[in-house]
Amino acid sequence: MALLSDDRLLPAAPAQRDLARDLYAQVKDAPIISPHGHTDPRWFAEDAAFEDAAKLFITPDHYVFRMLHSQGIALEDLGVPRADGGSVETDPRKIWRLFARHYHLFAATPSRMWIDHALQDLFGLDQRLSAETADAAFDAINEKLASPAFRPRALFERFKLEVLATTESALDDLAHHRAILDSGWQGRVITTYRPDAVIDPDFEGFVGNVEAFCAYGGGGVSWDSYLAAHYARRRVFAAHGATATDHGHPTANTANLSQSEAAALFAEVVTGAATPGKRELFRAQMLTEMARMSVSDGLVMQIHAGSQRNHSDWVLARFGRDKGYDIPQRTDYVTALRPLLQEFGRAEGFHLILFTLDETAYTRELAPLAGVYPCLFLGPPWWFHDSYEGMMRFRRSVTETAGFYNLAGFNDDTRAFCSIPARHDVARRVDAAYLAELIVTGRLDESEAGDLIQELTTGLARRAYKL
Amino acid sequence: MALLSDDRLLPAAPAQRDLARDLYAQVKDAPIISPHGHTDPRWFAEDAAFEDAAKLFITPDHYVFRMLHSQGIALEDLGVPRADGGSVETDPRKIWRLFARHYHLFAATPSRMWIDHALQDLFGLDQRLSAETADAAFDAINEKLASPAFRPRALFERFKLEVLATTESALDDLAHHRAILDSGWQGRVITTYRPDAVIDPDFEGFVGNVEAFCAYGGGGVSWDSYLAAHYARRRVFAAHGATATDHGHPTANTANLSQSEAAALFAEVVTGAATPGKRELFRAQMLTEMARMSVSDGLVMQIHAGSQRNHSDWVLARFGRDKGYDIPQRTDYVTALRPLLQEFGRAEGFHLILFTLDETAYTRELAPLAGVYPCLFLGPPWWFHDSYEGMMRFRRSVTETAGFYNLAGFNDDTRAFCSIPARHDVARRVDAAYLAELIVTGRLDESEAGDLIQELTTGLARRAYKL
Amino acid sequence: MALLSDDRLLPAAPAQRDLARDLYAQVKDAPIISPHGHTDPRWFAEDAAFEDAAKLFITPDHYVFRMLHSQGIALEDLGVPRADGGSVETDPRKIWRLFARHYHLFAATPSRMWIDHALQDLFGLDQRLSAETADAAFDAINEKLASPAFRPRALFERFKLEVLATTESALDDLAHHRAILDSGWQGRVITTYRPDAVIDPDFEGFVGNVEAFCAYGGGGVSWDSYLAAHYARRRVFAAHGATATDHGHPTANTANLSQSEAAALFAEVVTGAATPGKRELFRAQMLTEMARMSVSDGLVMQIHAGSQRNHSDWVLARFGRDKGYDIPQRTDYVTALRPLLQEFGRAEGFHLILFTLDETAYTRELAPLAGVYPCLFLGPPWWFHDSYEGMMRFRRSVTETAGFYNLAGFNDDTRAFCSIPARHDVARRVDAAYLAELIVTGRLDESEAGDLIQELTTGLARRAYKL
Repeated sequence: MALLSDDRLLPAAPAQRDLARDLYAQVKDAPIISPHGHTDPRWFAEDAAFEDAAKLFITPDHYVFRMLHSQGIALEDLGVPRADGGSVETDPRKIWRLFARHYHLFAATPSRMWIDHALQDLFGLDQRLSAETADAAFDAINEKLASPAFRPRALFERFKLEVLATTESALDDLAHHRAILDSGWQGRVITTYRPDAVIDPDFEGFVGNVEAFCAYGGGGVSWDSYLAAHYARRRVFAAHGATATDHGHPTANTANLSQSEAAALFAEVVTGAATPGKRELFRAQMLTEMARMSVSDGLVMQIHAGSQRNHSDWVLARFGRDKGYDIPQRTDYVTALRPLLQEFGRAEGFHLILFTLDETAYTRELAPLAGVYPCLFLGPPWWFHDSYEGMMRFRRSVTETAGFYNLAGFNDDTRAFCSIPARHDVARRVDAAYLAELIVTGRLDESEAGDLIQELTTGLARRAYKL
Repeated sequence: MALLSDDRLLPAAPAQRDLARDLYAQVKDAPIISPHGHTDPRWFAEDAAFEDAAKLFITPDHYVFRMLHSQGIALEDLGVPRADGGSVETDPRKIWRLFARHYHLFAATPSRMWIDHALQDLFGLDQRLSAETADAAFDAINEKLASPAFRPRALFERFKLEVLATTESALDDLAHHRAILDSGWQGRVITTYRPDAVIDPDFEGFVGNVEAFCAYGGGGVSWDSYLAAHYARRRVFAAHGATATDHGHPTANTANLSQSEAAALFAEVVTGAATPGKRELFRAQMLTEMARMSVSDGLVMQIHAGSQRNHSDWVLARFGRDKGYDIPQRTDYVTALRPLLQEFGRAEGFHLILFTLDETAYTRELAPLAGVYPCLFLGPPWWFHDSYEGMMRFRRSVTETAGFYNLAGFNDDTRAFCSIPARHDVARRVDAAYLAELIVTGRLDESEAGDLIQELTTGLARRAYKL
Repeated sequence: MALLSDDRLLPAAPAQRDLARDLYAQVKDAPIISPHGHTDPRWFAEDAAFEDAAKLFITPDHYVFRMLHSQGIALEDLGVPRADGGSVETDPRKIWRLFARHYHLFAATPSRMWIDHALQDLFGLDQRLSAETADAAFDAINEKLASPAFRPRALFERFKLEVLATTESALDDLAHHRAILDSGWQGRVITTYRPDAVIDPDFEGFVGNVEAFCAYGGGGVSWDSYLAAHYARRRVFAAHGATATDHGHPTANTANLSQSEAAALFAEVVTGAATPGKRELFRAQMLTEMARMSVSDGLVMQIHAGSQRNHSDWVLARFGRDKGYDIPQRTDYVTALRPLLQEFGRAEGFHLILFTLDETAYTRELAPLAGVYPCLFLGPPWWFHDSYEGMMRFRRSVTETAGFYNLAGFNDDTRAFCSIPARHDVARRVDAAYLAELIVTGRLDESEAGDLIQELTTGLARRAYKL
């Protein structure tokens, strides 16, 4: 039995399926452009073997453990590390069995398809994961992981990664990226400048972060040295391959204060005692400052807005961030982005890529904005929406207003390395299915679809991210 | 001519239709679990014959008369009772003819399918309702209604109802439920604790309601006796079969005040003179109190949030509540539920079932919340969304993030008794169609679909509602 | 090669396609009812030849030039006139070539289908527009435009326009409409009363506009003469064929102040110095005043709410309004319309047609409102949503709750004359496809679909607009 049908995600109707198959075949083996994600550069710097199936598939993947947790399984029993030093399950086989026994919970979810893809294509398994098959799968995976062909760099090449962007804090020393560059290995692993820790006054340790950060600007804690530090660090990140910055904000609010107002606001937030309104205003102002710097240094700017993070204080205190307790919230773009766009919306060469967790913005705000402002690109369906239905909703919602060429292609945005080929494969299949749908309903010529499937797979991402 | 196709709502494409037919066949005759609704327990207590076709299908069903009214037909002419004592049409044949003459207004609406289902399956009619067929249908229905086989209890059994939950006010004496229990009849008709009349300061007669209610708590009007009254009444409801409470609030706001703050707020709202903000805060606080009591007594908690009720003062004054003038409004969950979830989101055995009239919350807030918090379940598409398209949107929106097992199955939420089999039949058909869609696109195995169609039909509801 | 498939937009599955083809054939050649749009009455008054392909297809059509601009093409190079008197490209062939070279940007957008439709059906072209085909197309179009058969009146008749409504400012002298009426030509071109320039305190020149306007009310600048002017002008517009008014507001807010409060508010806004809140309140109050007048004089009222206009100050200053920089925003109806609906929701003969750019309102607010209030009709999918996917989303979202008879049929809302047949053709195809979908899934009888396709094409628009 195959875990996955060769025709998965392609349309069921024969004429449409044939068209989709042809289109998919044209990009099935194309290189992977991964311009935004959260894999660990240490993997590629050190090229050490991955430890075991549980550490590969479960403990680092909040998509996986949040679903198990939602059905009452304790995060401790899944080996999710405690932030408070408490003990958790450490036996990977036990963790794997618990996961396998509950694998039915993932029916019809993207996680299931990603994991099945890896189990089948990467680890050669052909039995659905379950209590019965748990041990055999665990042993087979671990055996492979121990072999040289499953080291990070080997997998990178096997996955046909043309470029892989990781994301580092503005305070990161980029030692792993340095090591990759110095190693002589040809794999293109690049960094991305993510300054949330020094931009978001609500970030853990913000005041200390800013103090440390300003040292890069050559002076004490002042607005000028703070800005200089950003410029300096962006240069260093660019020297480590970065072509983009990334900004994870609760809202898409931007502001365009005068520099003296901004300096005064900075002075207030670095006390750590600013009001919530002032803290939000600072984040808003900093998006505009980041745009100004992008216009200057050419780094592509990404905004990932709209997650209400760490919804449970108890989980945050016990396990830390990124534990599945990040819930999307309604997100405005039309009013929020206006100050930034008024100033830089037509700036030559400026690329601003927008992401949303609020799908209502697709037709209402994002496609109309991207369909007129020269600087704007729409990122692919993000996080919960990186799925068959999510991608189809995105295509059907934005294409009619924004067309294809205001899009930034696909990106996987993952920390689960083995899911990268699976995620890109899903995207290619959905795009083939969507283009086939356009053809059979007379909205696109077959000859155009051939060009577009290439654009959607590689061309748009290369151009939007200046790769 | 049949009013309804045997294959209605199943997919049109042959391969998919065959799969869907097989799945539907597996649950077509399954018992009905109806864990939330608004039928009248008096029917089952007294088991008297229903009066006539108009009283069965038109005057109590706001789905029906609102549509006729929207096209300019006076509610009086449809026999909708006046709250102000004014006179209305009383000739059921006239009312029925008016309805039949305008039956084309219901084309492609769920009401049309529910009514056709009842006309065909229950009353053996095979002509589309119209001015021409009105009298024959009216006479045929009335003749059947007069027979013992169409008494409420007989229909209950004929509908294969395994359990039917009604909904009673916290002030209800539960006499009908008592009578059912005492009658020796085996039908399981249970109540649900609905305390809006004593929790919502905007409810008609709130101050008097609370005074009367506090007597159940053994004392005067105080926060302590008020809480004690809730505990006491919940126990009595549970003794009359209740496994759940239900809360109809304009928003999903929750609050978590200290008990002294809550007591002071209570003292203020029972004066009847609190500000709108305070009234909303009281509703919010009471959701958290209800959660606390559910954690203690095990009753499942339901929140039906987001209806702006009684949109027309004129209609409210003339005809009272529930007259079709209840309009959904934008509803936030992520911020609103946080106080309650912080406190009780992980509480052992606590079940909180969420409903929405704002479909934008499906992918943005509800599925992500249900996909991580152990206590949360998502109720089925509610009210306007209890329809083919509404159900399909729900499945396609929530499954990828919440999976199937964080759902509460189907419930019909109706006061139209004869629509119960029709509504469950629609749900079973849509579920079969959806699962077939997953299979043909390689997202689910056929063997899994067989389990899931059973879960969606009965299993999930039984577990979520602790039946 | 044909530019367009005969079966475009019809369902791909054979059984469904056959049904859809039959339905489409029944209305393919039906007359066009165009009850709302922005064509120029001067065309029909003067009946002069259109100048050239660029002036016909590009410079007046913000759908077209915004997309080109979004990919970095300067509006100046597209010949978009400068509001500030600056110079722009004037060579129509150059403009046309620039457009043709970038025609791939429109792949899968409605503009592409509209333009292809006109190129093929009207101008007899059969090659996809591109750099290579640009000149041949340009010459062929210009040659035809110079012939009598392509004059505005000839096209009006060729398009089978039964009625075409234009939209004029409350300050317009209606000279073109007068000329059409006086010319003896039989084409029915009617006006629509659009008083935004004298109702919206944020409109350019509002204070002067109101001063000029009050002269129609026979007195100085006062609330009474202002209202009298509205009544007077509405009468004049009606005498020039108008059956409707139209109101383009940023929100759907309505208010119902006392007349003395309204008079005081008027006195404040005409100073030009009122706060944003007061300006919004005045717009809100005026919607209710317009409803009152409609109840009195029978003019159908349209509200087009929810566009945040002129998003870029730079573009507004340089090119003026309507340059593609109008972005939808979240729009509430349930609370916003309540004051107006409380007062006039049940008024005999009152028709209020609602439009939205916020699709989330379809199932949540608009369908429930239209499904109960006698006065309400829903306008067709507007602006960005006037597309295959947009129309399908609309049908699938509103029909189940509002039915078909609370809808206002289709309208093209265009200033691009040649797109009118194309737009109505798209609507007819989508409706045929949708009805076929209802039939094959057992939600509608074939016999009903035949009536409904006629209603959707002509009947509903005629009745809603009192044509």
